[in-house]
Amino acid sequence: MRYAIGVDAGGTHLRVALVDEKGNLLRKEARVVGPSRDPQLFFEQINKLIKEVAGSSLSKLAGIGLGLPGICNQREGIIHQLPHYPTWKDVPVIEWMRQKFSCPVVFDNDANMAALGEKWKGATQKFSSFIMLTLGTGIGGGLFLDNKLWRGEEGFAGEVGHMVVEKNGRQCACGNRGCWEMYASAGAIPKGTTAENLSKEADQGSPTAKKFWEEFGNYLGLGIANLANITGVEHFVIGGGIAGAFSHLIEPAKSVIQHSTYGRLAEKIVLLPTALKGDAALLGSSFCVLNSKA
Amino acid sequence: MRYAIGVDAGGTHLRVALVDEKGNLLRKEARVVGPSRDPQLFFEQINKLIKEVAGSSLSKLAGIGLGLPGICNQREGIIHQLPHYPTWKDVPVIEWMRQKFSCPVVFDNDANMAALGEKWKGATQKFSSFIMLTLGTGIGGGLFLDNKLWRGEEGFAGEVGHMVVEKNGRQCACGNRGCWEMYASAGAIPKGTTAENLSKEADQGSPTAKKFWEEFGNYLGLGIANLANITGVEHFVIGGGIAGAFSHLIEPAKSVIQHSTYGRLAEKIVLLPTALKGDAALLGSSFCVLNSKA
Repeated sequence: MRYAIGVDAGGTHLRVALVDEKGNLLRKEARVVGPSRDPQLFFEQINKLIKEVAGSSLSKLAGIGLGLPGICNQREGIIHQLPHYPTWKDVPVIEWMRQKFSCPVVFDNDANMAALGEKWKGATQKFSSFIMLTLGTGIGGGLFLDNKLWRGEEGFAGEVGHMVVEKNGRQCACGNRGCWEMYASAGAIPKGTTAENLSKEADQGSPTAKKFWEEFGNYLGLGIANLANITGVEHFVIGGGIAGAFSHLIEPAKSVIQHSTYGRLAEKIVLLPTALKGDAALLGSSFCVLNSKA
Repeated sequence: MRYAIGVDAGGTHLRVALVDEKGNLLRKEARVVGPSRDPQLFFEQINKLIKEVAGSSLSKLAGIGLGLPGICNQREGIIHQLPHYPTWKDVPVIEWMRQKFSCPVVFDNDANMAALGEKWKGATQKFSSFIMLTLGTGIGGGLFLDNKLWRGEEGFAGEVGHMVVEKNGRQCACGNRGCWEMYASAGAIPKGTTAENLSKEADQGSPTAKKFWEEFGNYLGLGIANLANITGVEHFVIGGGIAGAFSHLIEPAKSVIQHSTYGRLAEKIVLLPTALKGDAALLGSSFCVLNSKA
């Protein structure tokens, strides 16, 4: 049996797991920690947790897979940039990791890794094309087209959260206005509350909370309809921290998708909740190590 | 030398050409005619013009390639639907053509055919990935990714004109509001004038016409930025009837692209005018016949 370390480093969480080639998570640790201004500091935290989780298996690893919250250029082994962290510029991930670990290291955007996870062990095992959407701090996108990830010409694909759906709309931290993620991610949650609270309140019948999720779901549907019209992809998986509110989102989203997707594509769109929850990117990054064809 | 007939049937034009395998247009005819409610009537017009252009070469053709203004399902040999023509439903193109012609017949969406034309003999010969945009009655999109057309799971890819860029915006004929093509295609041209007139007026310094193209270009740029953020594609070719106004559009479009494309992808975006003008889809559909790998 071969083993990999999978890492899922999101905007506000860090998860590390030891995974075998059947996709079993043998050991898993999570920390509430996001990237810091100093990328080296962040990688020190990652590396510490890797060593902790790997334990005595460290020397026998098939490799380490990293799902990272930034724009990853795999040809050059660097993270081009990280949202909201201007100090991260062309961070040499592979070089830094090679200095610390002797096993192979692969990396990719966390939404891409989540897509690979869902394909391997999750909701989309039988689909040759789908789009993974991670609703978290923002909206990440993983485009899986014709049995492989489509990463764009230089790794920039999947920044779906910055698709403008409302010209001159809400101000986004990226500097632009009307970005999708200002309406259908944590960016849409009012200050002073959380997605969990709003979900609980909607469960209990609060009209305000229900109204919030309805609008959130409508915008989610609008963006999905846009993605479908552009790419002709019919299967969408919803993951990320806010996926827990899927039951509140699904009907409002479907209703807008039905109306906004062009022609007969509308009736073909399928929305799936993540089957792996917080483990999607962990499994995907392990898969990248254990199956080098990815 | 092998010869093909290429057909470009758009919303308001029909063009047919005899093309050799080097990409020379040996004979070309054009008619101002669009699809009619009765699809059979439209194909009779197409077939008449094919016979006229092919002449004595008809019996020696390598095949006929059709660029058609609808959603094409190549596996089933049908047009699923045509914008604004509800009477067109699963039209059996291939079956109909086989009844009339003995040579092989291939078909695809006109924007896809234009993309193949630009790749073969036009603006994008050296690029492995690009998006073709045809600005005409609406906005057609051809996604050329990693050296091949991406048609979606069932041929629905590329309906980029129906991407919503302004929720609750202008009413589109598709039934939705705020579709991109209501702002950056003939759909944005005020009644009583034409793109040619507005172009001429802008050339002559008219502030109203200049303002019109500035806004048009801004919206063009907004949609391109969205496409870039989603797909990570960096090269865009602008064709179609309105491509003649490229010089008026380019700067306003670039300025919005610079601002709305996420992160460092912004500096990588390249906008190219069509190198083939009205011949792009004719050449692409001929290429489909003469090079069966497409």
